[in-house]
Parts: sequence; structure tokens; C-alpha cells
Amino acid sequence: MTDLGAVATPSLLLDHARVTRNAARIGERVTALGARLRPHVKTHKCVEVARLQTAGHFGGITVSTLEEARAFAAHGFDDITYAVPIEPGKFGGAVALAASGVRLSLLTDDAAVPGPLGEAARAAGVTFDVLLKVDCGYHRCGVDPEGPALVEVAQRIGERSSLRFGGILTHAGHAYHARGAEAVAPIARQERDVMRSAAERLRTAGIEVPVVSVGSTPTVVHVDHLNGVTEVRAGNYVFFDLTQATLGNCTADDAALSVLAAVVHRDVHRRQVILDAGAIALSKDRGAADLDSGGGYGRLLDLEGRDLGLAVTGVSQEHGTVPVDDDALLARLKVGARVRVLANHSCLTAAQHAEYIVHDGPRVMDRWPIHRGW
Amino acid sequence: MTDLGAVATPSLLLDHARVTRNAARIGERVTALGARLRPHVKTHKCVEVARLQTAGHFGGITVSTLEEARAFAAHGFDDITYAVPIEPGKFGGAVALAASGVRLSLLTDDAAVPGPLGEAARAAGVTFDVLLKVDCGYHRCGVDPEGPALVEVAQRIGERSSLRFGGILTHAGHAYHARGAEAVAPIARQERDVMRSAAERLRTAGIEVPVVSVGSTPTVVHVDHLNGVTEVRAGNYVFFDLTQATLGNCTADDAALSVLAAVVHRDVHRRQVILDAGAIALSKDRGAADLDSGGGYGRLLDLEGRDLGLAVTGVSQEHGTVPVDDDALLARLKVGARVRVLANHSCLTAAQHAEYIVHDGPRVMDRWPIHRGW
Repeated sequence: MTDLGAVATPSLLLDHARVTRNAARIGERVTALGARLRPHVKTHKCVEVARLQTAGHFGGITVSTLEEARAFAAHGFDDITYAVPIEPGKFGGAVALAASGVRLSLLTDDAAVPGPLGEAARAAGVTFDVLLKVDCGYHRCGVDPEGPALVEVAQRIGERSSLRFGGILTHAGHAYHARGAEAVAPIARQERDVMRSAAERLRTAGIEVPVVSVGSTPTVVHVDHLNGVTEVRAGNYVFFDLTQATLGNCTADDAALSVLAAVVHRDVHRRQVILDAGAIALSKDRGAADLDSGGGYGRLLDLEGRDLGLAVTGVSQEHGTVPVDDDALLARLKVGARVRVLANHSCLTAAQHAEYIVHDGPRVMDRWPIHRGW
Repeated sequence: MTDLGAVATPSLLLDHARVTRNAARIGERVTALGARLRPHVKTHKCVEVARLQTAGHFGGITVSTLEEARAFAAHGFDDITYAVPIEPGKFGGAVALAASGVRLSLLTDDAAVPGPLGEAARAAGVTFDVLLKVDCGYHRCGVDPEGPALVEVAQRIGERSSLRFGGILTHAGHAYHARGAEAVAPIARQERDVMRSAAERLRTAGIEVPVVSVGSTPTVVHVDHLNGVTEVRAGNYVFFDLTQATLGNCTADDAALSVLAAVVHRDVHRRQVILDAGAIALSKDRGAADLDSGGGYGRLLDLEGRDLGLAVTGVSQEHGTVPVDDDALLARLKVGARVRVLANHSCLTAAQHAEYIVHDGPRVMDRWPIHRGW
């Protein structure tokens, strides 16, 4: 079996024990909360990881691009929600997926969309479930849950014979600006309660609401109950990362994703080393660092996973700068030494790479492809 | 001929007239300065762009990864400098390239590297040119030009029969922290003069210095002369970008790279639209925004290239947020409308994509692949 020391650098590493444990723990939590799990695969874009997440669940997934939908459909996933509002330029791609036999659920929050979308579906002889995106306080997309658009857009969807009104969907992205259980819990309750009220308004207007879908990793970790919610679409939890640990949604020991890197330069006078992992291999997401300046662009572990107390404080395209105060560490981190950089934001780091090197401690178990693109 | 309006979003667009003009202008400037141009292809990772840059020049290129070296070698480029210090984990990859017939120049600044590198080359029956990396003030990699390591490492390289001492190389990355010709010019002179002095020290010690290589886009734009320098390795200039324009190294009209995006959500009350281009499609590089807060994650153009006076002010993975104050613009940017987002930092934006859609105004001319990975 190959050892991590023999893997080319930079490479993306996935800790098999951690990803398996994370998938099981949050999967069990969602089931215990009485909802169905439709994991968001945008975090990993990887069929093997999605199989870990959906084992023991109903098999539905969430995607953020039509290319993810195509890649997962090609591997047998046939119940897919494309959770970015659909726009006319993507009608053709969505129709092709539906025509291939995928149950593809689309999203809109715009009254002008159901008409042309319904016409495109009708012309192609396919049917879409269409979910109404609701704004639960993040203010990125979605209709105002208390305004007239909620009922109006739902009705527009329902009027089209080639569209089924699938229900309502939201994402509490503002939970990423809250730190600790006490700050996240009110947002988790808001995400749930806004959706319960919105569903109630629609039902009062005579509209059936089969799906009430919520989803973010912070809120599923901290919510007290999900009565009235049918579906959870969290995704990041399967890897977690330093940002989630800094926010208090996991511990650093849950973070499953790191980048294997080699020292390419050491300056004993300036007391720093340079790694061959920079802005591309790590991504420029400072996530954790914006919350806690100690994090930089990622914290360093040795190949056995022990925290070295070091961080990447600067990046250029293929270089990462690591200040090293400790004499013994500086002696050890000579040119060619290998380290792991724990990801700040696993979704963005993963998207920089073509595959995961799946490992058990310092041993390589497998290689899993990443399906990038749009 | 396809129109940009029919291209899937998000996609990476390359303006053919601009990239051709940039390649010619800086190529002519380097020739006029009396140096050879060895363009850095890390900016674009694209064979067709490298052909534009090397037309009329000697054909050498610079790469930042061995994967770039392999991809360009497979397309006939046979004089390649790998401009990141070599470490033992990459000896095998370098040897394989040299054995395939590429004249591969490597880089080091560490006295412990030439011994094992020379032994690996000797065992494989190949020869490397090895350049000594010199620190001209950026303080990322390189030996102190006035310290003992300059002569010592050069001698260590020269002692090995399978290595040729190729000369000295530097990168004035600190020029990216200087704004305007008056601030950059002293750094450009420093980059040149440090290297002239270093070459002189080596020659005084009896060491031949065939190559004196400098390279950054800001310094080649603003340097007054390059006497004593043999080679320029600039790369970004072929695309330029908003960061270079903000720094005063080009105008926004030189920026050749943009991301085609569609509006997926419009909120007329909150006065913003959401694009389907976010942190992955644009990269999280704020480059220009850190210098000038108006830039955000990229400025918006219409499909004809006219500046809309708008910017992407926030990104999540697949969403970009664009505030829109103007009523007429807000009316026009309905769901499905297409815009172009001019790249902040073209090197990082390009690395997020698999190909360039090469365009002439609103018309698609070609598609050129991008060779990513390590």
C-alpha cells in the first residue's frame, strides 16, 4: 500500500475515517429529527462521497451546477434538486437531463420564469418538479415569505401542466456569520419557522406543499427540532473544515480535507518555509482567518495528522508562506519535507483539484475523481 | 458563427484582439530592451496563447508546475524552465521530462539540493541546467544576493557532472504592492541591478553566468533598461486584468479575460441581482478590490464590452451578488440576462476553468483548452 510520503505534491487528501464518521453522524441526526436527507454534493462533487452520505437514506441529492447533475446521473443518482434558480439559458440542459430519466427538481423565485420553463418542458415532453425559493433571512435569493410573490409564483408554477409545484426551499447562509451554538440556534429556528409559516400560507391559499426543504451545516448541527420540515440539504458537514471549527459547528478533529504539500524553500534567518501549495491548491478563501487571524490560509499537520502549530500566512499562485519560530521544527522542515494543510473552506479547496487521495492515517487507500465544471 | 448569447454560463471568455495585442506589445518591448522573452505560461496554461507569445521569439517558456511542463512538451515546446525551487519529490518527474528530450531548466536556492539532484540525473543518464534563485527584495524564495550562499550554491551546482550551472533567476513579486510608474520603476531597477551585481560577484569568483533572468509584468512595463539581463519571464501581461489596471500597469481596455454569466435572481426592492458566477467561476481573489474598493470580485461589462458601472460585491460558491442602483439597468438585468465579469486576477480566474471561449466582440471564434493540475 502506498504511503502518503510517496504521493505527488500538491495533492488533495481525504481522511476516510473522518468523512465516514461525519456522514454517519449528521445522517443519523437528520433521521432522528424526522426529516429526509438530500445532501448537497457541491462540497465534494464526488460520487463515492455521495454514496457514503446517501447510504441508509432515500437517495436524493442536491447539486449546484447542471454538470454535477449530469455526472451524478451518469452514476445512477436519479432524484436530483438543482438548487440554484433556473434561468432560460439552462432550460435545454435541464430538459436533456429530465429526458434521460432523472427526476430533476428545479428552483425559481421569479414570476416570469414558470411560463417559458413550462413551455420548454411541454415542447420536449418532459415534466419538472419546481420548488419555490424562499428567503429566510440570508437575502441572497428567494421570495419574501410574507409578501405577495410567495403565493403568486407558486400559482404560476401550478398553472403549467408540464410543471408540478414541488414545495418550498431555503438556505440559511447567514448562519455562516454566527459563531457558537447560542448565535446559530436562533437562525436555525428562524430558517425552520419561516418555512413552516410560508407552507401554512400556501396551504391556506389552497396550494399543496409536498416538500419543505431547509439546509445548511451550521443550522442542522444546532437546530432543536425540525417539525414541519420534510427535507435537509446540508453538504459541508461531510468534510467540515477550519471555518466550521472556528464557528463552533465541529472540532478541528472532524475536518476531513487537507492538502499534501512539500517544502520547496527554507530560510533559517528569516525563519520561514515556502510550500508548493498556494492560491490554486488551497484556494484564496480566508474563511477561518477572517474569524480568527491565527488560521491564515490553512493550518499545518504532519503526515500522521498532528497539529504543528503553524499556518500558511500568505499565498501566491503556487507558493504558500509559513513562518516557523520553533528551532526544532525549522530544522525538520527542510526542502522536500512533507506536511498537510488543513482546508479553511473545504468546498472551495476541493473544487481546485481533480481527485481525492483517500487515506487512512499515513496510508493511501484509494483515489476518487472530482466532477468539476458547469 | 456562434454568438456569446448562446454560450453556456458561466464560461471563461478570452478577447482575441486584446490577447494578440498584449502579446505583441510586450514581446516587442522585451526585444527592444535587448533581452530574450521566455513567457510564464502559468497565467493561461494554454498552448495556443503560448504560441501567440513565442511567435517571433526563441520559443522558450516558463512553467510553475511539472504538469504544465508535460502538457506544453506534448505540444512541441522543448525549452522549459520550471520556475519553482525543485524538491526531491519532483526529481522523478523532472527526470522523465528530460529523458523525453525536453531541455528542462530547474531552480534551487538550497545547498543541500544539487547533490541528490545531480545523483538522480546521473543515475537516469540525463542532464539539467540548474538556475540559482536570487532574492531581489520580494523575500519569498532565493538566496541573499550579498550573502555567502550565492557563490556556495552556484559552486555546488557546478560540481556535479550531470548538472550545468545555468545562471541566476529572480522574480520581483513585491512590484505587485507598488502603484503607478513612479512606485514600480525603483523596484524594476532594483530587480535588474541586484541581478547585475549578483552576476558580477559570481563571475569574479570564476563562475560563468549564461542566463540572468528577471520577470514580472509590472517591472517589464516600467523598467528603463535591461542592460546585463538576458531574459524576461513575465506572464500576466498577455491577459492583464483589473489588478494590473488598478496598479497602473495597463488600462482596463487591455484586460482580455472575463467570465460570461447569467442573472439567476433579481430583487427590485433590494436593488440587486445574483449571477451564476461565484467563488469558483471568478476565484476569491480580491486583488483590485484590496487596492480600490470599487472593484469587488470583478466589474461588469455587457456582451459588447461596455462597462456597466457595476461590480460583483460578494460571492458564495456558485452565486455572485451585484448591487444595481440604476432603474434602467435593473429593468434590463432580468433573469436570463447575460453579462461579462472582467477578471480581478486573470491567473487565478483562468485556473478555475477547463477552456477559453475565444471571442471577437460578441462572436465566438474558437475554444482553447486549459491544462490544469500538478
